[in-house]
Amino acid sequence: AIAAEVMDGVAAPAAAPVAAAARPQLLAGKKVMITAGPTREAIDPVRYITNRSSGKMGYALAQAALDAGAEVTLISGPVNIAPPASAVVVAVESAQQLFAATHEHIDDIDIFIAAAAVSDYRPDKTSAHKIKKSQAEMHLDLVRAPDTLASVARLENAPFTVGFAAETDRVRDYARGKLQNKKLDMIVANKVGADCGFDYDDNTVDVYWRDGEKAYPKALKTELAHELIALIAERYNARYSA
Amino acid sequence: AIAAEVMDGVAAPAAAPVAAAARPQLLAGKKVMITAGPTREAIDPVRYITNRSSGKMGYALAQAALDAGAEVTLISGPVNIAPPASAVVVAVESAQQLFAATHEHIDDIDIFIAAAAVSDYRPDKTSAHKIKKSQAEMHLDLVRAPDTLASVARLENAPFTVGFAAETDRVRDYARGKLQNKKLDMIVANKVGADCGFDYDDNTVDVYWRDGEKAYPKALKTELAHELIALIAERYNARYSA
Repeated sequence: AIAAEVMDGVAAPAAAPVAAAARPQLLAGKKVMITAGPTREAIDPVRYITNRSSGKMGYALAQAALDAGAEVTLISGPVNIAPPASAVVVAVESAQQLFAATHEHIDDIDIFIAAAAVSDYRPDKTSAHKIKKSQAEMHLDLVRAPDTLASVARLENAPFTVGFAAETDRVRDYARGKLQNKKLDMIVANKVGADCGFDYDDNTVDVYWRDGEKAYPKALKTELAHELIALIAERYNARYSA
Repeated sequence: AIAAEVMDGVAAPAAAPVAAAARPQLLAGKKVMITAGPTREAIDPVRYITNRSSGKMGYALAQAALDAGAEVTLISGPVNIAPPASAVVVAVESAQQLFAATHEHIDDIDIFIAAAAVSDYRPDKTSAHKIKKSQAEMHLDLVRAPDTLASVARLENAPFTVGFAAETDRVRDYARGKLQNKKLDMIVANKVGADCGFDYDDNTVDVYWRDGEKAYPKALKTELAHELIALIAERYNARYSA
């Protein structure tokens, strides 16, 4: 069902590959894994908890990494975007499926970019039958879903690991905190609620790493993706040539 | 944001209007309102509860009603389908917004078809800030969202009112119960979990009304929509000529 849905209602391919050959092959020979889109945590066969995420940023990053010469594995939650040609796409639904698919394909990955909006919590129990609305109130007990990003960053031979932080306030503090707590190599922070981010084609981000940071003005996600891939390639090379 | 999303990732128009002129004008001069798609009930600016619904059935019904000569108002939750040309489309997100939009446009409506998968429950409180995942568990208190379908059927000059029931088991019992409890003129029941329904192009439905019922074999939603509109027109005429 997921694979069908990913393909369904398909728009034009995520990015025009026209100028691809002209782009510098900054990631030639590198294996890049990118997670994208939301996850869905089932309450019952009909209802679920999810996050606002169109998948556009992750898909644009996948295309940009391909344009930079990388081999790309895209672990995707349910979205309505055509997957970039020549990426290996693994369709997932829940945070647990995303965790499993990531670790199944993580060997030999050089760079891991976690752009998916993964649910932090999932219902403690999933009902096999549709819950009837017989009561005026309903209580949902949620437990933590697995943290794929942190688990990858903690691997013995962890790839260069890039996280995302979507925050509504104190963006810089939370992003720097997440960078440190999860032992990431880089974090891309975007402020939710301005005229960009979820469901928009534009995005405004700040990027942080241990000893540096860079702010990007509002730009198309497709344009921004190429800039982020260039920065990731630069920091990746800096780490492994140091 | 909703309007943008409805238009976003747009596939081909919901149904080809090629043979439209050839279709019998069963609803000429009638005003039809259709609700379609899921609703989203915000937990915080990032997380929300929703239902599995692609909006395909509702959009196909809107096209079929247009093809039958009706004026169509489409109240739509967030979907990724191009709205049918010449329908009035009102984009909504939550069950409360769907309730308000429906009642704002309900005057003079002859036939109301509630194909939307409206959330029955919404979070008691919506946090203005993203809830931090500081705890191992989280408890959500949900309260009942407004029941637009029942509220329309109870109006003094209620339109001919058609509901939908998506059930995982005891489909017939629940559908007949809903028909009676909500004082509907007709109910369309589909079994969730077979190879049709959510996110699929096919659907298998049974239709019930006070003194009759009709089963439809598995069919494309676009084909099924025309059959359902013909049945609705027949039952509508039976009610008002009786």
